[in-house]
Amino acid sequence: ASRGDVRFSPCHHHGSVGPMAGIITASMPVFVVENRAHGNHAWSTINEGLGKALRYGANAPDVLDRLVWFRDVLGGALGEAIRRAGGVDVRALIAQALQMGDECHNRNRAASALLVKLLAPEVAALDLPPAERSRILAFAAGNEHFFLNLGMAACKTATDAAHGVSGSTLVTAMARNGTDFGIRVSGLGDRWFTAPALTPVGLYFPGFGPHDANPDIGDSAITETAGIGAFAMGGAPAIVQFVGGTPADALRATRRMYEITAGESRAYRLPALDFRGTPTGIDVRLVLQTSILPQINTGIAHREPGVGQIGAGIVTAPRDCFEAALEALAEAAK
Amino acid sequence: ASRGDVRFSPCHHHGSVGPMAGIITASMPVFVVENRAHGNHAWSTINEGLGKALRYGANAPDVLDRLVWFRDVLGGALGEAIRRAGGVDVRALIAQALQMGDECHNRNRAASALLVKLLAPEVAALDLPPAERSRILAFAAGNEHFFLNLGMAACKTATDAAHGVSGSTLVTAMARNGTDFGIRVSGLGDRWFTAPALTPVGLYFPGFGPHDANPDIGDSAITETAGIGAFAMGGAPAIVQFVGGTPADALRATRRMYEITAGESRAYRLPALDFRGTPTGIDVRLVLQTSILPQINTGIAHREPGVGQIGAGIVTAPRDCFEAALEALAEAAK
Repeated sequence: ASRGDVRFSPCHHHGSVGPMAGIITASMPVFVVENRAHGNHAWSTINEGLGKALRYGANAPDVLDRLVWFRDVLGGALGEAIRRAGGVDVRALIAQALQMGDECHNRNRAASALLVKLLAPEVAALDLPPAERSRILAFAAGNEHFFLNLGMAACKTATDAAHGVSGSTLVTAMARNGTDFGIRVSGLGDRWFTAPALTPVGLYFPGFGPHDANPDIGDSAITETAGIGAFAMGGAPAIVQFVGGTPADALRATRRMYEITAGESRAYRLPALDFRGTPTGIDVRLVLQTSILPQINTGIAHREPGVGQIGAGIVTAPRDCFEAALEALAEAAK
Repeated sequence: ASRGDVRFSPCHHHGSVGPMAGIITASMPVFVVENRAHGNHAWSTINEGLGKALRYGANAPDVLDRLVWFRDVLGGALGEAIRRAGGVDVRALIAQALQMGDECHNRNRAASALLVKLLAPEVAALDLPPAERSRILAFAAGNEHFFLNLGMAACKTATDAAHGVSGSTLVTAMARNGTDFGIRVSGLGDRWFTAPALTPVGLYFPGFGPHDANPDIGDSAITETAGIGAFAMGGAPAIVQFVGGTPADALRATRRMYEITAGESRAYRLPALDFRGTPTGIDVRLVLQTSILPQINTGIAHREPGVGQIGAGIVTAPRDCFEAALEALAEAAK
């Protein structure tokens, strides 16, 4: 990269989103998610699972071998299975999973199981060696974040549809690159409003602690931007065992996000809040009026490459992004 | 049956449990569940799914065709898949599902998806025609109560292990045959203490109402006997859309059951109650002291054979069973 042989560009600039380091190369198979109401699309890679993974900066031989298998076998097989299934209704999967203890950012156990359940009958009939069919389903079943990238792409299609409305103060993207945190605002075009990324507070895997943590990283805050993730964690009380806090904290977090959002989801409803729709559509003005910052559930990456995920926790978007966006909105309104 | 060619006997008298009519014949494949701590076993059939099903009194050609397929294909295939998977840890599945919005009686969506996820890699490698592998997984994936019978058998192995303790006032079985409701008590041998079954109060499928309902029926109250089902519904708020009431009612129901139970589960914990173990072990004395009757979530069968399930709701065990058991306990203590 330093020699200029590899060029980097943000996923968001290519209609795509990727968790953590979010690397997408030309040879990687991707899911294609369509927003049927609005006609736009988004793309995401196949989630590699926990432990050593490219998205956490690991590039050991087993990481690369898995990516080769993705390219040569898994991508094509999942593509064929999805086509045979007549596509996957990602919004319906998210809606169900939110009633099954997921918030679809740091907890995707239900959504992943539902996705495996949907695809398994098709994969089982693919014209592949038995061991390969089995490996595909075992890989999918063994990865509790198998759904994550697909859900992120669905969120991207939702927020992209809200982008570009003149005068709109809604946030349509929040993304972090491990150094800076950036937001995009519907009425302010493709500009990013950035500030230094904060470091998540949370729970660490054995042997790691806060001094090992990299600042907040990845495109996965697209989930909160679309009204799920930490915004829906009131329906995912078990997640506190992973990110810290108590079930009451999780409910409070969701309730607090209603203060800074313009609406409530009609598709995503939380039983624990009497089936109230999740808080959706962060409004720059409400963030600054209330001084309540958008909360994000996130994985924590080691600050050195090659180690991988070392924990999970909670972080907020930095206030300065919203200050800068408000100034630009005021400028644009002149 | 009236000619004496068919003999009937309760499932519970054969170490087994079956939902609703609970029919098990000699030619039906069964799951075998082992209580490894105690060494005992229980058996249950494969759940047929919603709509017309033998357990709801239906015996149309498609119902019988499905049972033939169970016998000839599905039973053997699932058996082979379970053996290849090295068995299924049913307790772990229940524990996970209770943190995913199931109460594992009237809501088994998560447990069923987790079970499909576990078996899919094995089924996909079975030496069967591709369409048959696909059909097996599509059937399992299409039945949100696929897990129910397995969970019931696991509950049976748990409560059977508590049976036969001299002087014990714990309830080790609750079962209904559509006419009578019966309980067994640990210290009172194989005797059933019965009273007329009540009729559930709940929500009906379109076109049906309370006048169509059969009184409470089936062995599935073994789930409540073992501390899940209605006893765990505080962790399953979405179930109120199926059985009626509000999420707050569901929490109240679980909290109330602590008043009549001797302990709290160490395996089954509810995030919504700060990971408190589910109320487990109904004590005959506590039921009568508090006048709180065990609550049961249940399906509602049409009172005429052949129609099937017409709704779902909530019912209690009748108080007279507990009165009769207490008298017998007093008698036994003399």
